[in-house]
Amino acid sequence: MALQLHVHRVSQPSRALVIFCKSNGIEFEEVFIDLTKKQHKSPEFLEINPMGQVPAMVHGDFKLFESHAILTYLVAAFPQVADNWYPSDIKQRAKVQSVLDWHHSNLRRGAVTYIFNSKLAPVFGMPLNLEAAAEGEKTLSASLSTLESFWLNDGGKFLVGQDKPSVADLSLVCELMQLEFLEEDVRKRILEPFKKVQQWIEDTKNATNPHFDEVHETLFQARATMMK
Amino acid sequence: MALQLHVHRVSQPSRALVIFCKSNGIEFEEVFIDLTKKQHKSPEFLEINPMGQVPAMVHGDFKLFESHAILTYLVAAFPQVADNWYPSDIKQRAKVQSVLDWHHSNLRRGAVTYIFNSKLAPVFGMPLNLEAAAEGEKTLSASLSTLESFWLNDGGKFLVGQDKPSVADLSLVCELMQLEFLEEDVRKRILEPFKKVQQWIEDTKNATNPHFDEVHETLFQARATMMK
Repeated sequence: MALQLHVHRVSQPSRALVIFCKSNGIEFEEVFIDLTKKQHKSPEFLEINPMGQVPAMVHGDFKLFESHAILTYLVAAFPQVADNWYPSDIKQRAKVQSVLDWHHSNLRRGAVTYIFNSKLAPVFGMPLNLEAAAEGEKTLSASLSTLESFWLNDGGKFLVGQDKPSVADLSLVCELMQLEFLEEDVRKRILEPFKKVQQWIEDTKNATNPHFDEVHETLFQARATMMK
Repeated sequence: MALQLHVHRVSQPSRALVIFCKSNGIEFEEVFIDLTKKQHKSPEFLEINPMGQVPAMVHGDFKLFESHAILTYLVAAFPQVADNWYPSDIKQRAKVQSVLDWHHSNLRRGAVTYIFNSKLAPVFGMPLNLEAAAEGEKTLSASLSTLESFWLNDGGKFLVGQDKPSVADLSLVCELMQLEFLEEDVRKRILEPFKKVQQWIEDTKNATNPHFDEVHETLFQARATMMK
């Protein structure tokens, strides 16, 4: 059954999916959805994901969106995926699932709100919103603090005490890579208090390279274009 | 192994857990966390859930929070749970998981933001915030529209085409029950355009009664106290 991932690599959950498949030897076709041409709002794409967002997956005739649901579906559909990615032990799996659920209203919400309103809005023809950015930064910093003191505090190099990464590490680190869109001094100021988080980002890169760096090339190019 | 649910029944995910266990004959101890006495911020409770939020679960010596993660853990831990709640078919399970993931940043975010800022804030000693409420109502209405036109549009009485409820139906309908905190005319205005959603709320109640109504008694009492 053919697997297609409809993605744009500036999108953090898109990158998580692509890196996941490459790291696990899952063959797939990467379908580039050009966000600058609004292809994610085209009738063809809305047939795949009516929410009009990347990423989306098509596996045979099965269509799916929401990146966490796609990641855990791929684990179930491709038996070669190693157990660390979404453990079969029901307690360890529940802990990974707990991070994935926590992510939505915490790290993701904080990072997206802060970066969009302090930096990216003009790229989409909208004004910066410093009040919303401040609110986002508060959520982002609180989430980083929770990562440092709780999620990364269970032994092991990765989330919830694992010594190898799970889908949660990949999803959350790809989210944090969006901080690359900020000025370097701002990014450093935000991450500086969180030593374990910084080490964990490096560990997750190392565990998934060369794919991690290759897939993030688009992000660095987009950043360079934006900074001009 | 003893199962404890640490909950308050005014909390929508707390109710979803209690109704789920009662509907599936899962024995548990309900530990009442008095939010009005800030018991969710007590050192004892923070040992169970460092985020200081209900619900939280303790099963033997295993502690877990995030209601969706708890629901799917309970499905795995209690084999008597019928397949409709979180289907073993990997595609159907992925569709249910997709709704659960979608919920966080859409229906939940919209409902919580709207209801808190238009009605509940003073109960917690905070002012109403009509701008935030308007933003919340926009997200809430868009989410109801997505439920009506997409998630409930796949045949079957329940979400993603099922003829029996899944954990997603329970989670989302318990969320919508928070609308009971609003004035009746406001609640009617918000739900009025969405006939399938209204029918689905009734169908989910019917599928889980008498537990659904019994567990929601606390909500109606809290509402009556607030309206005085």
